[in-house]
Amino acid sequence: MLADLPTPCVTVDAGVLERNLRAMAAGATGRGLALRPHAKTHKCVEIARRQVELGAGGLTVATISEAEVFADGGLDDLFIAYPIWPSPQRAARLRALAGRVALRVGIDSAASAEALARAVPGLEVLVEVDSGHHRSGVGPRSAGEVAVAADQAGLRVRGVFTFPGHAYGPGRQRPAAEDEATALALAAESVSAKGLDAGVRSGGSTPTVTFSGADPLTELRPGVYVFGDAQQVELGSCGWGEVALTVASTVVSRSGPRVILDAGSKVLGADRQAWATGFGRLLGHPDARITALSEHHATVTFPDDVPVPRLGDVLRVVPNHVCATVNLADELIVVSDGEQVDRWAVAARGANT
Amino acid sequence: MLADLPTPCVTVDAGVLERNLRAMAAGATGRGLALRPHAKTHKCVEIARRQVELGAGGLTVATISEAEVFADGGLDDLFIAYPIWPSPQRAARLRALAGRVALRVGIDSAASAEALARAVPGLEVLVEVDSGHHRSGVGPRSAGEVAVAADQAGLRVRGVFTFPGHAYGPGRQRPAAEDEATALALAAESVSAKGLDAGVRSGGSTPTVTFSGADPLTELRPGVYVFGDAQQVELGSCGWGEVALTVASTVVSRSGPRVILDAGSKVLGADRQAWATGFGRLLGHPDARITALSEHHATVTFPDDVPVPRLGDVLRVVPNHVCATVNLADELIVVSDGEQVDRWAVAARGANT
Repeated sequence: MLADLPTPCVTVDAGVLERNLRAMAAGATGRGLALRPHAKTHKCVEIARRQVELGAGGLTVATISEAEVFADGGLDDLFIAYPIWPSPQRAARLRALAGRVALRVGIDSAASAEALARAVPGLEVLVEVDSGHHRSGVGPRSAGEVAVAADQAGLRVRGVFTFPGHAYGPGRQRPAAEDEATALALAAESVSAKGLDAGVRSGGSTPTVTFSGADPLTELRPGVYVFGDAQQVELGSCGWGEVALTVASTVVSRSGPRVILDAGSKVLGADRQAWATGFGRLLGHPDARITALSEHHATVTFPDDVPVPRLGDVLRVVPNHVCATVNLADELIVVSDGEQVDRWAVAARGANT
Repeated sequence: MLADLPTPCVTVDAGVLERNLRAMAAGATGRGLALRPHAKTHKCVEIARRQVELGAGGLTVATISEAEVFADGGLDDLFIAYPIWPSPQRAARLRALAGRVALRVGIDSAASAEALARAVPGLEVLVEVDSGHHRSGVGPRSAGEVAVAADQAGLRVRGVFTFPGHAYGPGRQRPAAEDEATALALAAESVSAKGLDAGVRSGGSTPTVTFSGADPLTELRPGVYVFGDAQQVELGSCGWGEVALTVASTVVSRSGPRVILDAGSKVLGADRQAWATGFGRLLGHPDARITALSEHHATVTFPDDVPVPRLGDVLRVVPNHVCATVNLADELIVVSDGEQVDRWAVAARGANT
């Protein structure tokens, strides 16, 4: 079947996906944690619905436009885990959204809380806390101050959240999960000390989720687990058997131990962390490495003792960062037992605003 | 006007674009070289038409689907600068294309030439030569052999081409252009020695184009020059005044000398060469650096003595690699004298097959 696909194209193994969805749902339930998966990874209404069927209380998204897509798809409980700045346009869109779904938004300053309160009075918010990734979010002990500003401005504070993104490095998963727990506990204490609601303590990412426990967490927001990717494999956060998404790609050129595939950065994404062994991996060829990547060429180098694929062969590339790959595709080709069974639109592709 | 845009969004300054188009057209004409701009950068029918109006003999594209989009847009002379492997599906699409435009395709092996000849008898081809980038392409002295195989299989050999991609590094532009000239001269000699046509000797990339002269070259295929980007600025291949494309982006979070913009890798692309100073630059803030990039966050660090932008401010990000940015956008917002004057569809976005 692979040979019939118009390469490069993005395929999803339905069986592997279903196992990943079930395992995460069971893992969260088993620890008494709510699951609110981050939909920025799959951007796909079909998968979001299945996550909810399997017990997710709602979805996480990154942007207003992602929220709009999933609201259109019938998902009715959405958390925008992002410190949105409400320009007049964005304010109007947020008000419209809040009128049709249960909506929650992130804040990380008094100024953004006040602007948001003017835009959407009574909106539910979580205070974003920096647990070590040093991106957005306030220091844990400042969460109470931001919560007070939000409350006084007329927002409804429901708790705190963090993204332990510093887990993306070898050996950093457990320490980042510990940072996350510490930061959420301190932040919740800081909010409670002001007499405000810190009932939601939301964290989680695919690399840390194994190490995240209830108390202080109440909610997990992993995204990548649905598909897995080369980064997760190289971090040890998933095995090859949990990789559900691959890019089918054709060998177009060949020279010595090196082949060129037609999957480049315009289908895989150019993401490459400093610790990654290449620009992606190949399913079934664990010793091959993507040693260079252009827009339409992946240069794959094979070890000396391994037979090199032939011109025209179709190989399955595991992208480094699957969220980037999905966002470059219009659709996912759904495969089961080697046969194409469905096509799902990447409904929220490019939904950046 | 910037403040009214739904950030992040991709804007193009019409005046700067027009100057860039005219300068390259004049530069090619002045040196007696044909110009066949690479349309993978802009993916935009409006810009392709303007390139032809200004004297381009045809366009270069990277994929069959890009060729299909530009053929639909009325462009009738297309070179697919890629060693296409003609699966049955691709063969049918190539035959259809060859029936409606002047079409030329790359080959870099006897095997691919024979497969292509079975798929599209009589197709015009150029032999791809490796001039030092070590991606696809044969050694210059082997061009003749591939040309003979192509000719005997029934293709029409028209010459040779190369992409001096190893120019992408500080100080490497002139040496890469010299490699390009040497490789094309040797390859042309190798093809002519077999009694075959080496009339087209095509090279060029935005960083090398200044250093490429007629003899041995007959044709230039630069792409990025239309918009410029942070890579070209940092390589010295363009100045800030030649940057036509920027991503309008809002400050959503702020902490000390650091702000977070809402333009992440899902709008900019994650491209970052080892020598780049960050994940992109900011127009009008030459000392600021994008020190980290996530999917929806650019972390911008300002020097100590520079006033840091405020929450809600809209800044203009110059992406590292503009081809990646365009391929993530559905449309380009065309601006003239600070006002929006048009919107152009990125017609070939995602055209990877």
